[in-house]
Amino acid sequence: MDGIVREALQGLSGIVGDKLLSDQATLAKRPTKEQLVKLLKSSPPDQGRSLEDVVKEFEDILSYRFNVNHPRFYAFVPSTASPLSWLGDVISTAFNNYAGSSESGSGICAVEESIIRWVAEKFGLPPSAGGQFVSGASLACLTALTVARDQLVEDDMRTKATAYVTEETHFCIAKALRITGLLKHQIRTVPCNAEFQMDRESLRRAITQDIENGLKPYVVITTCGSTSTGSIDPLDAIADIAAEHRMWMHVDAAYGGSVAFCESRKDLLQGIGRADSIAWDPHKWLFQTYGCSVILFKDKSHPRESFATTADFLRDVEDGYVENPFNFGVELTRPARHMRLWFSLQILGTDMIDRMILRGFELSDLVQTELSKLIKWEIVTPSNMAVINFRFNPPGKSAEAIDEINSLVSKRMAAQNIAIVLTTRIRGVVCLRMCTINPQTTDDDIRDIIGALDQNARLISKGIILK
Amino acid sequence: MDGIVREALQGLSGIVGDKLLSDQATLAKRPTKEQLVKLLKSSPPDQGRSLEDVVKEFEDILSYRFNVNHPRFYAFVPSTASPLSWLGDVISTAFNNYAGSSESGSGICAVEESIIRWVAEKFGLPPSAGGQFVSGASLACLTALTVARDQLVEDDMRTKATAYVTEETHFCIAKALRITGLLKHQIRTVPCNAEFQMDRESLRRAITQDIENGLKPYVVITTCGSTSTGSIDPLDAIADIAAEHRMWMHVDAAYGGSVAFCESRKDLLQGIGRADSIAWDPHKWLFQTYGCSVILFKDKSHPRESFATTADFLRDVEDGYVENPFNFGVELTRPARHMRLWFSLQILGTDMIDRMILRGFELSDLVQTELSKLIKWEIVTPSNMAVINFRFNPPGKSAEAIDEINSLVSKRMAAQNIAIVLTTRIRGVVCLRMCTINPQTTDDDIRDIIGALDQNARLISKGIILK
Repeated sequence: MDGIVREALQGLSGIVGDKLLSDQATLAKRPTKEQLVKLLKSSPPDQGRSLEDVVKEFEDILSYRFNVNHPRFYAFVPSTASPLSWLGDVISTAFNNYAGSSESGSGICAVEESIIRWVAEKFGLPPSAGGQFVSGASLACLTALTVARDQLVEDDMRTKATAYVTEETHFCIAKALRITGLLKHQIRTVPCNAEFQMDRESLRRAITQDIENGLKPYVVITTCGSTSTGSIDPLDAIADIAAEHRMWMHVDAAYGGSVAFCESRKDLLQGIGRADSIAWDPHKWLFQTYGCSVILFKDKSHPRESFATTADFLRDVEDGYVENPFNFGVELTRPARHMRLWFSLQILGTDMIDRMILRGFELSDLVQTELSKLIKWEIVTPSNMAVINFRFNPPGKSAEAIDEINSLVSKRMAAQNIAIVLTTRIRGVVCLRMCTINPQTTDDDIRDIIGALDQNARLISKGIILK
Repeated sequence: MDGIVREALQGLSGIVGDKLLSDQATLAKRPTKEQLVKLLKSSPPDQGRSLEDVVKEFEDILSYRFNVNHPRFYAFVPSTASPLSWLGDVISTAFNNYAGSSESGSGICAVEESIIRWVAEKFGLPPSAGGQFVSGASLACLTALTVARDQLVEDDMRTKATAYVTEETHFCIAKALRITGLLKHQIRTVPCNAEFQMDRESLRRAITQDIENGLKPYVVITTCGSTSTGSIDPLDAIADIAAEHRMWMHVDAAYGGSVAFCESRKDLLQGIGRADSIAWDPHKWLFQTYGCSVILFKDKSHPRESFATTADFLRDVEDGYVENPFNFGVELTRPARHMRLWFSLQILGTDMIDRMILRGFELSDLVQTELSKLIKWEIVTPSNMAVINFRFNPPGKSAEAIDEINSLVSKRMAAQNIAIVLTTRIRGVVCLRMCTINPQTTDDDIRDIIGALDQNARLISKGIILK
């Protein structure tokens, strides 16, 4: 087997290097039904196959996808993974270190703790803060909301506990709350203001009313960079309300948290340091490959009270200077998710990271500037945290027709391999949405794309291009 | 940046290849306090550092660890990761595919579904089965126990729900149950029989009594390959009891599930196909790197009812032939954890995998044979599922002295860099425990190690080696 691995390693530059660095041609590729059914029905062979054959098939399988790393992919939150993140992960996973206990992985656990401390400082959390790396914000938020419940809800008040979200809150929060045992009627959706931020007076009223009804408000979930509009809830004001009622404030900063690493924009996060817990995804706007997320707690004794356990077979895993990660979260065995981030930060330096984040702001501002030069286009939500929503909105068409035109524009842009700009619904209308955080996107990319959007919208609107 | 990546790729064989394949000298290495404190206090640099410097420091950090992949590492569940698993992951992560939705990753999601189907068949689950890859058994069990609760516990019975485990049940189960909202008094620990298996009559009595008390027994958690002793609960008998009371049977087969892929031993798993859910870790005994685990459901509509969600920004992610993974589990964004397993299975073939698993059984049988040739050694739990517990037990010593001798033997073996054989407690006494699933362990390794254990035990027992 050593031979196979050596051969593969020596050829790795050819196997993945060229693909990784240059095969950016296709934005989206789907298999035919036949290709898909063949994959679905396949089973592993009894006898091994040649490396060459397997790698070839592997490439086919991987090619059927949205190329979320492409500089012209703007849907959802695009991946902006730097090849350096991948490289850091390659080296780290080669050693297959065990990141579950500090005795088993002293070096990597110490580095995890140092990164967590550094990030917590950047967010303005106190020295008591702690946390860990998890697979994504869904798990980060689940970890936080479990701890919030355990810290603030007495056992006999579980059925009376109430949590507060908005319509901009990511759906992973409701999922996480339900996993922790909340029923749907225990989750309040607080209205947003015109800027898609949690309305503080509505929050206050909802809490007061629940208390009057004998319920137990325990957690308010704020969003720092919503997926749809990039909105940030008024963190300071909500922290005041949470403090007043002795509630937990969780900040879902999965998307927006990265702005803490951009000096000229970090003031946007004002108040985040008052959170009891913060979820943040380096695999979104800090250029890491998927599976690199962080959960932070203001006080690291809080997660310990929910998760610390022991077992006889761990008796020789002594406590040392470094925390045992399994006492701070859901997992025992886990990969070393943070070493890729360590590697990226060391090679790039924080000044470069700062500029790479800033670039996202500049790009969505450019989208807005270019759109404002055109007629018949409407900015639905302005450039905010590198997210912008807009639509072609010619006069004299029905609401349905305009929704349809914008949907077709999105499809046409993909079919032409120009850009992936998907639609979303904002206050009931279909919009085109761009999230421009990929620093490899050029100004010319943006100008080309806005031009193509406009041209397609006009042709579709005139009935020259049909569905 | 391309230059750095190309350079690194071309040098990857040197960077990690030699280390990966040949640096097996050190079983365990710990940093000095100074080295550790330096790591703990470090922060990322403002300006980037050279690739060479960073890789060198990276190697230092990774070297401070238990070498869990070493053929002479037998503690916990050792890692048996094949370099092929790492290689599959390297190729897969290079493309940073998004494995959260089938539209975004059609190819990899189809392959995930095909592997899940194939695994479900091997376990004897019906065609209705489904599931997904998660990071580890902690998350797999959490996923299952959330679904079990949602399927069987009416909203107004949440506080009366009761779950059944044994002392051999892994602690991640109690953790998962608590996350889903169960309080400690809702978890019953059913006694085990002499073989460390859940005692069926005790289970039946506990359920009956809880029903009489107006409670709602809803899930029994069985273990298929316990960490301490390798024991397997009587799955068929417990499935009967679960069916009788309309309860959910979860099988934690994180460790033992792999035996389904070993023709000559798969009968050990008799009854596993009657489970409502099964957790299994390919990163334990199927030779994968960390972060490769599976949760399976008898009926794939069950997880959908707990986890299916939608969001406006996902409106263009259409349902196709392939399931959207985010509707079947806790996560939305997630890495493609399964492609490394696909790669290993394709290159090795299932016949080779079968032999690699069988080797684990042979090795622990050999440990037992070698020990039985010696005097003063006691087999505490016999070779079972590649796990064996034993102790040096000379006559005329106090119970404390014997515990102390065995603990010292363990430490001495590590200090001599001979083998990592840690201790555990079985029925109150300290035992040495070996889990022998690494197929790279040779017969000579085992004979050397048993010889060294005996020699050390005798010297320590005579007071010739002191603590």
